[in-house]
Amino acid sequence: MKRSMGAVEAAKAIEGGSLTAEAYIRGLLDIVAERDGPVQAFIHLDAEATLAAARTLDKGPRRGMLHGVPVGVKDIIDTHDMPTGYGSPIYDGHRPAADAACVAGLRRRGGLVFGKTVSTEFAYYTPGKTRNPHDPSRTPGGSSSGSAAAVGAGMVPLAFGTQTAGSIIRPASFCGVVGYKPSFGTINTAGVKPFGMSLDTIGGFAASVADIAFLVGALSGHDFLSGLDKPDTPRIGLCRTPQWPDVEAGTETAFAEAETRLARVLTPVTLPAIFDDLAVEQVSVMAYEAAAAYGSENLYHVDRLSDHIRDLLAKGDTVDGVAYRAILGKAARARMALAEAMDGLDVLLVPAAPGEAPVGMATGNSVFNRMWTLLGVPCVTVPGLTGPAGLPVGLQLIGRPGEDARTLAAAAWLEAQLRG
Amino acid sequence: MKRSMGAVEAAKAIEGGSLTAEAYIRGLLDIVAERDGPVQAFIHLDAEATLAAARTLDKGPRRGMLHGVPVGVKDIIDTHDMPTGYGSPIYDGHRPAADAACVAGLRRRGGLVFGKTVSTEFAYYTPGKTRNPHDPSRTPGGSSSGSAAAVGAGMVPLAFGTQTAGSIIRPASFCGVVGYKPSFGTINTAGVKPFGMSLDTIGGFAASVADIAFLVGALSGHDFLSGLDKPDTPRIGLCRTPQWPDVEAGTETAFAEAETRLARVLTPVTLPAIFDDLAVEQVSVMAYEAAAAYGSENLYHVDRLSDHIRDLLAKGDTVDGVAYRAILGKAARARMALAEAMDGLDVLLVPAAPGEAPVGMATGNSVFNRMWTLLGVPCVTVPGLTGPAGLPVGLQLIGRPGEDARTLAAAAWLEAQLRG
Repeated sequence: MKRSMGAVEAAKAIEGGSLTAEAYIRGLLDIVAERDGPVQAFIHLDAEATLAAARTLDKGPRRGMLHGVPVGVKDIIDTHDMPTGYGSPIYDGHRPAADAACVAGLRRRGGLVFGKTVSTEFAYYTPGKTRNPHDPSRTPGGSSSGSAAAVGAGMVPLAFGTQTAGSIIRPASFCGVVGYKPSFGTINTAGVKPFGMSLDTIGGFAASVADIAFLVGALSGHDFLSGLDKPDTPRIGLCRTPQWPDVEAGTETAFAEAETRLARVLTPVTLPAIFDDLAVEQVSVMAYEAAAAYGSENLYHVDRLSDHIRDLLAKGDTVDGVAYRAILGKAARARMALAEAMDGLDVLLVPAAPGEAPVGMATGNSVFNRMWTLLGVPCVTVPGLTGPAGLPVGLQLIGRPGEDARTLAAAAWLEAQLRG
Repeated sequence: MKRSMGAVEAAKAIEGGSLTAEAYIRGLLDIVAERDGPVQAFIHLDAEATLAAARTLDKGPRRGMLHGVPVGVKDIIDTHDMPTGYGSPIYDGHRPAADAACVAGLRRRGGLVFGKTVSTEFAYYTPGKTRNPHDPSRTPGGSSSGSAAAVGAGMVPLAFGTQTAGSIIRPASFCGVVGYKPSFGTINTAGVKPFGMSLDTIGGFAASVADIAFLVGALSGHDFLSGLDKPDTPRIGLCRTPQWPDVEAGTETAFAEAETRLARVLTPVTLPAIFDDLAVEQVSVMAYEAAAAYGSENLYHVDRLSDHIRDLLAKGDTVDGVAYRAILGKAARARMALAEAMDGLDVLLVPAAPGEAPVGMATGNSVFNRMWTLLGVPCVTVPGLTGPAGLPVGLQLIGRPGEDARTLAAAAWLEAQLRG
């Protein structure tokens, strides 16, 4: 299978003059031609326009750290010059007035929008057309389906995703790529269709930890890369989480293998009781916030909303402001309890998803992700293991809130172990 | 001067059948005809369309708690059926695809958009056309200029505002109305043009604490009104804040008067050192977040941005992710320190603005507001006092994060004291 070079390597080659942005994009478009037929990762991909943008960059002065770097953009993220449909028939052909903050930030630093990737309806559960690049009878996961699949198939080195429940970490696990959900608020969410205002987090996908750390660091003003070069051996807490009963063979096997291979750095961790119900309570927060955020679609276009969305909005109407704020208050206390539970450790190792990608289009279960999204902590899917069907199963690393650099360094270390 | 009835009273009269929404709106439009000439509070007001919406409500079934209640909507808040210009020439005539969450929530509960009110450019410092309703040679304050002035002139009983630095509390003080900035996240911000994602807060203006508590409570699923009926005498901490050296004669006089009239309930409070620099640090957070959020306008329309905005975006580029996150972490610690400083107290009484509304169009100084916005605490401007020029000076009450009900009850008590 053809593989193009990664984003960090390509950015260096373009800066050094041994590669042009145009040549890099041409190579990726060849992989798209070869791989995207069964995968269908893109909702909008204008090869000529992308090549033209690359040529403009090749002719002009160096714009910044991301000069010539192409990124797939999930279609709930606004682009002023490409349609942005939010995965919903209501917004078919919609043209936003401005780029989202992350897109403008990318372009300002010399990066390119490679194309728009398929999102589920409003980044919730109703799937789009994308299939898993490792087995087209299976889901790529969601809601960042096209972004995970495009990177998984090697069609683009980087893609933006967003996570409100489990929409980066789970599809990364299913597609065998690195997924990174930064600490809440790391990448500015202006211009992303809002779903849950205290949950929505932009992150992304890459073939390596270094590549996604490069993109997110450049956009948010962090030097994450310097810590990844020769990372210290991390102290890792092995934590099955209160959701362990939902685990399937894929993750059970992966965990057992991790336990054997990483034994010397692992410490078993059991979370205190305050964590027990957070995965359920996240749904109440998401429902309350979505019921407000989708008020307009619910008023004027209810017949074009899926049952998934309508059910969630109806649930949201049953949550009052006092109950909502009580959960957010509990989450703040759990964040402090997490720091205690992680005393002496760099990261926790937890499941990324129940197991391998399920057969069919339904995007799978976010039960191993929702608690961490509610807590706003950094999460990284590290690929490398496989389940009983031979499909990818990722491991998830969790860091303390704001400790993205430390979490990424541990992920780079784990990535090297699982490759070795 | 004509004054129409307040929102709570009107909602009851409409529910009881003694008033129609149409008649209520007609009365308000008469006041607009009489008062708006020198004030210029509205950027879009289509009297016939508003009357038609009122007639539709009068003919139809009762939709909810806000049936027939008209609200002015700051023009950085999206409306799918009215232009939304964000106070910027870049968005002149812009038509959003959807209503903002707060607008859809209003309409879904039977409320009406009375008109769009003037905002400064992107809710920052470049003023629009609005003048102070008490003296047209003076600013109404900003950035929610039109909303504060429209309520101050009695043209509409309620108006939405937003606060990122001091854009609700300060104009409420200058216009002699109640301003309420709820705890961060109380009203969903979807569809409000983002400026500072960890600061932007929707709230509003009314002639009484009860009216604004009614609107915000209905939209966020809180029963704030029941606590306002006969509020207990609150325990109030009198706090001059580290910004006191910026105070002018208006607020100095108002504070001295409050100290005399409220002596029996006041306890002096001095904030610990962690609060000293928060008003300055808020600017770094706002600049960092705005530099990302206005990336698109900065890339494609830089010639149509004011110097105010350009200077802030340039400052934002000098703040890195580590410094930004350090301030947010400090703010979280200060929030805990505030709870300690308020031990045994219900609220703090602090300045709302340096003094009376300044002469001219510049919207005044947000120095007494920025720290509280960064902390995400509930803030209420209570009017009733005047300065040396005979113009309104509000007092600001501050509550603990999430204790909006308690803060509003204290504000209702203070309102009654200052009226008596």
